[in-house]
Amino acid sequence: MNILRRGRLSAEPDEDIERFTSSMEADRRLFDADIEVDRAHVIMLREQDIINASDCAAILCGLEKIKAEGISALDTSYEDVHIALEARLIEMVGEDTGGRMHSARSRNDEVATCIRLALRAELMALMEEVHDLVASLIGTASKHHDTIMPGYTHTQHAQPTTLAHNLLAHSTAFVRDIERLNGAYGRTNLNPLGAAAFASTGFPIDRKRTTELLGFEGMLRNSMDAVSTRDFMIESMSCFSNLMTSLSRMAEELILWSTTEFDLIELDDSYSSTSSIMPQKKNPDIAELMRAKTGTVNGALMSVLTICKALPYSYNRDLQEATPHLWRSADAVRSSVRMAHGMISTMKVKKENMKLSSEKGFMTATELADTIVRTTGIPFRTAHHIVGAVARTGKIPSLRDLDAISMKLIHEKLSARGLSEKDIIEALDPAANINKRAVTGGPAPKETKRQVMALAKKLGSIAGDIRLMRKKVNAAAEELENACKNVLQV
Amino acid sequence: MNILRRGRLSAEPDEDIERFTSSMEADRRLFDADIEVDRAHVIMLREQDIINASDCAAILCGLEKIKAEGISALDTSYEDVHIALEARLIEMVGEDTGGRMHSARSRNDEVATCIRLALRAELMALMEEVHDLVASLIGTASKHHDTIMPGYTHTQHAQPTTLAHNLLAHSTAFVRDIERLNGAYGRTNLNPLGAAAFASTGFPIDRKRTTELLGFEGMLRNSMDAVSTRDFMIESMSCFSNLMTSLSRMAEELILWSTTEFDLIELDDSYSSTSSIMPQKKNPDIAELMRAKTGTVNGALMSVLTICKALPYSYNRDLQEATPHLWRSADAVRSSVRMAHGMISTMKVKKENMKLSSEKGFMTATELADTIVRTTGIPFRTAHHIVGAVARTGKIPSLRDLDAISMKLIHEKLSARGLSEKDIIEALDPAANINKRAVTGGPAPKETKRQVMALAKKLGSIAGDIRLMRKKVNAAAEELENACKNVLQV
Amino acid sequence: MNILRRGRLSAEPDEDIERFTSSMEADRRLFDADIEVDRAHVIMLREQDIINASDCAAILCGLEKIKAEGISALDTSYEDVHIALEARLIEMVGEDTGGRMHSARSRNDEVATCIRLALRAELMALMEEVHDLVASLIGTASKHHDTIMPGYTHTQHAQPTTLAHNLLAHSTAFVRDIERLNGAYGRTNLNPLGAAAFASTGFPIDRKRTTELLGFEGMLRNSMDAVSTRDFMIESMSCFSNLMTSLSRMAEELILWSTTEFDLIELDDSYSSTSSIMPQKKNPDIAELMRAKTGTVNGALMSVLTICKALPYSYNRDLQEATPHLWRSADAVRSSVRMAHGMISTMKVKKENMKLSSEKGFMTATELADTIVRTTGIPFRTAHHIVGAVARTGKIPSLRDLDAISMKLIHEKLSARGLSEKDIIEALDPAANINKRAVTGGPAPKETKRQVMALAKKLGSIAGDIRLMRKKVNAAAEELENACKNVLQV
Amino acid sequence: MNILRRGRLSAEPDEDIERFTSSMEADRRLFDADIEVDRAHVIMLREQDIINASDCAAILCGLEKIKAEGISALDTSYEDVHIALEARLIEMVGEDTGGRMHSARSRNDEVATCIRLALRAELMALMEEVHDLVASLIGTASKHHDTIMPGYTHTQHAQPTTLAHNLLAHSTAFVRDIERLNGAYGRTNLNPLGAAAFASTGFPIDRKRTTELLGFEGMLRNSMDAVSTRDFMIESMSCFSNLMTSLSRMAEELILWSTTEFDLIELDDSYSSTSSIMPQKKNPDIAELMRAKTGTVNGALMSVLTICKALPYSYNRDLQEATPHLWRSADAVRSSVRMAHGMISTMKVKKENMKLSSEKGFMTATELADTIVRTTGIPFRTAHHIVGAVARTGKIPSLRDLDAISMKLIHEKLSARGLSEKDIIEALDPAANINKRAVTGGPAPKETKRQVMALAKKLGSIAGDIRLMRKKVNAAAEELENACKNVLQV
Repeated sequence: MNILRRGRLSAEPDEDIERFTSSMEADRRLFDADIEVDRAHVIMLREQDIINASDCAAILCGLEKIKAEGISALDTSYEDVHIALEARLIEMVGEDTGGRMHSARSRNDEVATCIRLALRAELMALMEEVHDLVASLIGTASKHHDTIMPGYTHTQHAQPTTLAHNLLAHSTAFVRDIERLNGAYGRTNLNPLGAAAFASTGFPIDRKRTTELLGFEGMLRNSMDAVSTRDFMIESMSCFSNLMTSLSRMAEELILWSTTEFDLIELDDSYSSTSSIMPQKKNPDIAELMRAKTGTVNGALMSVLTICKALPYSYNRDLQEATPHLWRSADAVRSSVRMAHGMISTMKVKKENMKLSSEKGFMTATELADTIVRTTGIPFRTAHHIVGAVARTGKIPSLRDLDAISMKLIHEKLSARGLSEKDIIEALDPAANINKRAVTGGPAPKETKRQVMALAKKLGSIAGDIRLMRKKVNAAAEELENACKNVLQV
Repeated sequence: MNILRRGRLSAEPDEDIERFTSSMEADRRLFDADIEVDRAHVIMLREQDIINASDCAAILCGLEKIKAEGISALDTSYEDVHIALEARLIEMVGEDTGGRMHSARSRNDEVATCIRLALRAELMALMEEVHDLVASLIGTASKHHDTIMPGYTHTQHAQPTTLAHNLLAHSTAFVRDIERLNGAYGRTNLNPLGAAAFASTGFPIDRKRTTELLGFEGMLRNSMDAVSTRDFMIESMSCFSNLMTSLSRMAEELILWSTTEFDLIELDDSYSSTSSIMPQKKNPDIAELMRAKTGTVNGALMSVLTICKALPYSYNRDLQEATPHLWRSADAVRSSVRMAHGMISTMKVKKENMKLSSEKGFMTATELADTIVRTTGIPFRTAHHIVGAVARTGKIPSLRDLDAISMKLIHEKLSARGLSEKDIIEALDPAANINKRAVTGGPAPKETKRQVMALAKKLGSIAGDIRLMRKKVNAAAEELENACKNVLQV
Repeated sequence: MNILRRGRLSAEPDEDIERFTSSMEADRRLFDADIEVDRAHVIMLREQDIINASDCAAILCGLEKIKAEGISALDTSYEDVHIALEARLIEMVGEDTGGRMHSARSRNDEVATCIRLALRAELMALMEEVHDLVASLIGTASKHHDTIMPGYTHTQHAQPTTLAHNLLAHSTAFVRDIERLNGAYGRTNLNPLGAAAFASTGFPIDRKRTTELLGFEGMLRNSMDAVSTRDFMIESMSCFSNLMTSLSRMAEELILWSTTEFDLIELDDSYSSTSSIMPQKKNPDIAELMRAKTGTVNGALMSVLTICKALPYSYNRDLQEATPHLWRSADAVRSSVRMAHGMISTMKVKKENMKLSSEKGFMTATELADTIVRTTGIPFRTAHHIVGAVARTGKIPSLRDLDAISMKLIHEKLSARGLSEKDIIEALDPAANINKRAVTGGPAPKETKRQVMALAKKLGSIAGDIRLMRKKVNAAAEELENACKNVLQV
Repeated sequence: MNILRRGRLSAEPDEDIERFTSSMEADRRLFDADIEVDRAHVIMLREQDIINASDCAAILCGLEKIKAEGISALDTSYEDVHIALEARLIEMVGEDTGGRMHSARSRNDEVATCIRLALRAELMALMEEVHDLVASLIGTASKHHDTIMPGYTHTQHAQPTTLAHNLLAHSTAFVRDIERLNGAYGRTNLNPLGAAAFASTGFPIDRKRTTELLGFEGMLRNSMDAVSTRDFMIESMSCFSNLMTSLSRMAEELILWSTTEFDLIELDDSYSSTSSIMPQKKNPDIAELMRAKTGTVNGALMSVLTICKALPYSYNRDLQEATPHLWRSADAVRSSVRMAHGMISTMKVKKENMKLSSEKGFMTATELADTIVRTTGIPFRTAHHIVGAVARTGKIPSLRDLDAISMKLIHEKLSARGLSEKDIIEALDPAANINKRAVTGGPAPKETKRQVMALAKKLGSIAGDIRLMRKKVNAAAEELENACKNVLQV
């Protein structure tokens, strides 16, 4: 009979109800973490003399076997992995021993601890993937400092820029995403274990010890808060949504640039699909799915926010419904980052088309207006008026055209104020336009080269941070492993 | 080699990419529908003489076997069930035959047709479940026309009412949910097949025939719209969110009423859980999860809305990402309705506690004010002022109290204007309060009995509608079955 | 002193609190409706002899003056328009008369009634605007049955189609939006008045009479449901989100088609903006904002769903926070529809560019494969393979190319199976492609002409429905007006 | 004529279109910031010799006047505050001078800079308000270390705790909210100015100088990213949603605790409302609205996420639609924090009721099970079984009861294994229960006192951080002021 329900409740739920309440499916993500938590808890119970050495050894031994059997050996009629695992342990080593593992804790702190451990791993892996994506972006950018392309605003030709400038824009945004993930990591990597149901426990436990054995950076310092809050999930999922927003914007560009009309890049065949009916089709399906997964991730965030709204303290079963959204969301974002990385590193850039397109749409009009300001001394707004009027005619203006229009608008010829045909030619040259834009952040090759250097340095420091995180976590795992071995050897 | 990609594309996607693009998991919901669509399409192709009789028979025979094998026999490296199924067919009957099934159609119309068939079934089943829930609610209400309980506004004691009145409020809301689902059903039950990729086809197909064979009420009359739109999914999911909102409100009441503090009902043990640490606990977990699933359903809606936003016509791969949210959402809402039904029909009503609670919080103050209006002729707003002032003192007023306060506020005694001790006693009696509220919609037993009658009648008509839907769908299935048999017998 | 608070509460809220609780800003939308509701309620109170004739006349007279003064004359320190209006009335006619208006009702039913009246008007107006948009779309479509353009899937050239086919796809979708709005209208146009706080009232009111005087189609038949539910708001807002999704997709196309790269249309100057710095720019700002407003509308829906989640019955103050989202949402959607109408009816179609673009991207590949199927009898999947392989080479194939590839893939020449050069030429002609696609829903001119006819007929019937709605509402308004006059004349 | 449109565009938008595109309403939030940005930009232009001294002085002088006139003096037919302000300036000082202000910049970088400045101020103010809320919470907690109350899980009585423990749980959560806001502050406080339309500029501007004059911590280092990204808005709004989630949970508790049933606190009259019909009502309207505003804030986040999804780089007009959601959201969250502060600091705690309630629901069952474990040595799971079985009977057990049940379940008397009547009495005492729970985070008074100390220290450091932020911002404002004065004095 169900080891939890047998005392307090008489009727058993039917199958429909069991399915409704079960979190076993989503708990697959927590199985390994749960074993770790059990081990750390049991070691601490032993060290605090709350259980004796032989019970401790028997439990650890049982956990070893359960881990080896895998989650599929558990009785799925239990409502979650935690209690199924305990039931399996009791089955193995008897209730007189296995029944002691749950001393001084509750599922409420246990599940919160497991989620934090699993999410911690997820966040580290994601930061690594975003790091790799940025590395790939700046690698590609490095080859395209001089690859002139149209810069767009409102999806309209605006001013000429380079592919490097565009890819570095995305890179810079992704670096901020890593920073945010790092903040989320810090607030996730805290230990709720020992909070028990919410009131902590009367047993003389040592919360610092489990904090250490599980590699947490610190502990949650109020036991009611520890089991009630899911703010760390909301924070991570908010970071995911922000990151997916950035990714979706890059995806949109890849889709646009792959059209017959833009024709600026060709995605690799492995990142493309064809049609079941139209044999000529080569479709950017991966980029489309990446764009779509933004909806998946945003919806998941909305689900968790809605679920957590207005829940009185402390634990409520509603929180169980929140966790699967976290994993769905994490999977969608991680795989999307990987796909982005793959697409960027394999796409073929059509440099010639980019150049040709840069000559369309009178994108040098701004520089022409600026040049008029510099050579004639008229105000920018007036120069904007003149060049705008010339643009309406749909043709690239000569000095004569400009003079004609300025006569009409300001009753003076620009040539009379110093504008020369040579000035105009220079203003209208896309490459010259770009080279002039060398202020911090601009598209001039010497500036984008500097941006690459700065980003590479930043990436190096990020890589160092992640290595350090991994090191700490691994050291704790080793310490836990050793502690278990010591018990088992005695 | 992949039967779609072999022509146009050279590189094959690696495993990560395959997993990213695959919809096989969600397509489990479409396997049966896909077979139906294939059969109807092939029958029509035969009737229009687009394929010959022996190919038609071989394909239908192959489909039969594939259905028997089940979805697990398909090659999951294909990106979706449709093409995996076609590949399996070709494997069975050879490309020279199986390769003809996809004539005059595309996955774009095929998948839209499958989703509509599967959703149609889902909507019918859901309407039935909501019907059953309402039946259960009015059944319970029928036993509680005289069960006095506090009526709340702002979760504060407001005026006395009956349990019947409350349950009928929920019932009435759920009936509107059924009406909305019915509207969604009508706009789902339309045939996109024949739209092909979006441009329809040059083959002389007969769209009316597949409409008939698949039991659709009509067809989508523009082929670009037919494959592009997912408005029917958004509509259904909006109905789900609306319904879940209603359910969550009932869930909240069940949770509140089960607290030690309210103690108005006891949920059945089978709809309760206990704690892993606190042995005395009996928790309303099912109601909590039902409440939480509102977040799941709302988030799913947000996902689909976000995915569909700003997609240019016609089909985009983004749409594939939308479908799993539909099924998640449908599952959550259907199981929640079933749980609600179960909880309502098994809960124990604590009539005595309800009655006792009705005497707290001076809930009869409104009737007292109304009585003062009727007996003394002073305006309602003035009576409200007097009774409010008396309520501030925290005690149930006597005539003397009221006179004292009215002297202060309006310089007259209410008794002097005709208010008697008897009037007050009657006004303060909860049962008398309720009996007086017999206008349409009110809590008076004679009125709630009328409401039960009206709802029962409405339910009957709903049941009739659903039966008719089922009948039409079944008739079409039979016709399709017969058409297949005819071909195979020849 | 505050006419509501003076009785029960001692402390007054400070300014911060007043601002936090006030709905006066959003209630501007309800001022007119509130006067109507007051008048209908007061007429009914008189007819039921709950108030006397002279009080009734004085109140109606006061309401007339308040209406003339406008909302700005009300004391904004009151928390909502309803109580501010009552306070103003009392100020005008004295408490002994004005204090009787609120007999037998509560703000809970009053506000629900006002929202329903205002939303009803909003829905009618919106249906009219969508009607006009569709009329404009089919009007434009009628001029472009033969305007060949590329049809896209995945934003890639797919098959040739016509502008008419595309515009009719949008039209068909918008007609479904009108149908949904119509459903929402029906469930909005129901009378909650008389439900009072939730328990109805002990006064002998006549709910049918106010239903009639306010032009409602029926009444909400459970008084607790009547004040608690906001499902009608959620339903309307769901319809808005669905409609905005359709609009955003059209907006995306207008934006894409206006790019230098696509260059298929030119939006009118009045629907365009320029840049503060780039004088040559002509940007599709209106279309972009229309696309963006989808986010506004979807977020508003999410707000209301979140607000309503898990509120116990009956009224909670939370509901006040929901209403402004409804109006924001309604404004965004209505103005967007109007902008869409304007853009469509003023845009310049670049027919020549559409035609030229149709020749790019080997869009006739599907028809070529179909032709091969029809002339040679090989299966579609095999023809798809052959044409796909030829497409990979990037050139439009000759018979010789096809023979070469078919030799390689199926060891036969297609010419040997009956494919001729003439077949190929015909298959590759976009206009011929389109003409062949004459099945229901297809792009062939004779079929799009039929679609225009069908839609025009449908629009006519919609216009009739809306006229009828308006007629009923106007008739009720007149009856109310007359009833007031009768009282005032006596 | 419109100073922007006059060049490129011929037709003027009509009123509907103007209203559709205008951001003037939301730009009220940006007016002051815009003046600052203009001043810093103009000072820098002068220092870089891009404009001359007299033009610079005239412009600064004009800006001074415009500031004094206020936003209401601007021509609202312009589409935003930036261009309306420039137009007003030109009107004042002539185009030959005023037309120079917009040299080397675009509205794209200008608006991004203004939003960041206004949001920076908002974030500082919000952090201060949350700081004050926490101060108020720990102040109240300090008075209630010994105020025993029921601790809840699943809204069911779980274990006894203290009011201090609960309030500190909320405090701890809010401190993490401040940390997140601090992270958002850092990523907001970066300068986009100088990015111009997205390609930076050919004028020799000094971005470091404007960074300094506007008090930004650093600059955005890629100009395309600088104008395209709204990740900083999404991040802040995510923090707001997370914070509102915490607030909504506290609001729910305040609402529950104020019910007749729970009756644990009484909210101050100034934070309560009454009913228009039910004179006895005292409703927790402020807490309800606070709960509801969570929906407002979450919906706003969803709006911005949806708006930003899949926008290609760089600027798109869609971004304009995002900003009002930011301000709505910021207002809702800031006012909610203030209301929470007010409610907490004025509420009346009903200590006696809390104590009485703590004795209900057998909340000491866990301690009883723990005590059995400690005194008899049986495993926890077995003790849980025994106590659960006793709880099902609904009475608080004596030693005899426990013995009877343990005989049945484990065939031994617990008394035989050492459990005494005294052990039971101690285990069943709520105060003793709490005192035993003194591990880190627990409810024991000595531990909650430690928590108060730790939080107070943390708050001190937070206050220091905010002071430093303000100091830096103020210093920059002073420097800008001085720079302007210097120019004007010359």
